[in-house]
Amino acid sequence: MKLTVIGSAALDSIETSRAAHRDILGGSSVYASMSASFFTPVNLISIVGSDFPKRHSEMLRSRNVDLSGLEVKEGRTFRWKARYDKELSYARTLRTELNVFEGFRPLVPQIVSRKDNLLLANIDPELQSYIFHRIKPNGIVACDTMNLWIEIRRKELLKLLKKVDIFLLNDAEARQLSGEKDLFLAAKYILSKGANMLIIKKGENGSLLFSKELSFLTPAYPVKKVSDPTGAGDTFAGAMLGYITGRKKMSPEVLRRAIVYGSIMASFAVERFSAEGLARVTRADVKARYERFKKLTRF
Amino acid sequence: MKLTVIGSAALDSIETSRAAHRDILGGSSVYASMSASFFTPVNLISIVGSDFPKRHSEMLRSRNVDLSGLEVKEGRTFRWKARYDKELSYARTLRTELNVFEGFRPLVPQIVSRKDNLLLANIDPELQSYIFHRIKPNGIVACDTMNLWIEIRRKELLKLLKKVDIFLLNDAEARQLSGEKDLFLAAKYILSKGANMLIIKKGENGSLLFSKELSFLTPAYPVKKVSDPTGAGDTFAGAMLGYITGRKKMSPEVLRRAIVYGSIMASFAVERFSAEGLARVTRADVKARYERFKKLTRF
Repeated sequence: MKLTVIGSAALDSIETSRAAHRDILGGSSVYASMSASFFTPVNLISIVGSDFPKRHSEMLRSRNVDLSGLEVKEGRTFRWKARYDKELSYARTLRTELNVFEGFRPLVPQIVSRKDNLLLANIDPELQSYIFHRIKPNGIVACDTMNLWIEIRRKELLKLLKKVDIFLLNDAEARQLSGEKDLFLAAKYILSKGANMLIIKKGENGSLLFSKELSFLTPAYPVKKVSDPTGAGDTFAGAMLGYITGRKKMSPEVLRRAIVYGSIMASFAVERFSAEGLARVTRADVKARYERFKKLTRF
Repeated sequence: MKLTVIGSAALDSIETSRAAHRDILGGSSVYASMSASFFTPVNLISIVGSDFPKRHSEMLRSRNVDLSGLEVKEGRTFRWKARYDKELSYARTLRTELNVFEGFRPLVPQIVSRKDNLLLANIDPELQSYIFHRIKPNGIVACDTMNLWIEIRRKELLKLLKKVDIFLLNDAEARQLSGEKDLFLAAKYILSKGANMLIIKKGENGSLLFSKELSFLTPAYPVKKVSDPTGAGDTFAGAMLGYITGRKKMSPEVLRRAIVYGSIMASFAVERFSAEGLARVTRADVKARYERFKKLTRF
């Protein structure tokens, strides 16, 4: 089985208190695909401009990411410019240029099957919904989002929620969407709106899985030095869905391990700037962190 | 083997946004002894005034806490009055009355042996140091503290650190003591000052064990409704040391399980006001949470 990923492809300009990088590889579908590709073949659906560096496409292809669904359109690639606070806990958007993303209505390439699993990576819920209805997926469908969409596309997001199996968001977003401060109440609210499985990510403080009730909790893989949190959530979602897709059958055990791999891949993502950082990670690195994490958490 | 606990015994007046309770049972040695008594017999060393309700002493005795070391002195018991913020994350001290605690120089009762393990529960490091030198312990020595002592007794605390095996504090206190924002750097600093084992508690976000380097991390036992966080840290420390003392031999596995029990006992403590709340907990309750926690965290 394969995983289809839809989301943004971007050139990010990121500033932290320690460094600044311009036009580096980013976008939710890119982080998610890179991450998922460690576990399963991926079909990526997104759009870039004619300025999108060829080496990025080549790198993605070399990692078992099929780009039949990556439209290249005359014009500039989607750009996001942001500055992180000193604690790297909040990114202030300095500029968003939709560019070729404006009015993007993706075609579903032949290679995508209804039977594949589908990750609706963080992007406008209208577009997530559009692709969902184009594909009419029979496989597992997961959906990620962000504070912006909860704010301006709440209705569309809640409508989409009814159709997805797995919904991912962070603790602040869960509170925002539910209007509940308490995460248990927030989870209850969100599960009442749809999705059988809800993953609430708490960044460095780990994640919670709810399905009816709390069913798994895990710390985050410990990272000594975070360079750039950009793409951590996308990477988490990609690894999770990639791992699930790579297994023969879904089970509570597979889901738990998928969440652990989500945390591990996110730990690699935040150690370096750019989604290119994930290209330097090997399967052996991933395995080593999984084994270390097991040792660190067993009691 | 037994556990000796020294710390405060208090009558607390606690306000939260939901409730207010006056002169309820509190104090670090009381929470810690109650908690430890689930796992091992305890000798408590502290002082109360002649107004200390008999039912509290009787309750402690009924739970295998020896009170030979609990001095009863003419006068009023130590009192602490505090108000929590709405999120129950910060307690503002409204009044502290030392009362009989003023100038307290505990006598070590006959029943305490050098061979017993010793928990220096949260109290002035000068007093912790005093009792340490009176007992000259051969067993495992653990030390807990709080932001106040880091601020006004830094030198004494650092001196004491060289002599203890296990040091416990929360994340904010670790940052305060080390001057490092990053918890890994904070841990490195603290371990360089003494203590072989350092436990950094992150409240609802779990805890970290460092011994040279990070060697265990665990989420907190999930609590649906926190009523009063008072005594959570003391309860954690008490359970940890109680569990270790109740085992025949210390080992990395025992230490990990001790931390898990610390988190579980703390989860009971925060669900109710007053250290009396722990008296309603049964061994079966503790076992049930341990089994549930195992199930919730296994992958």
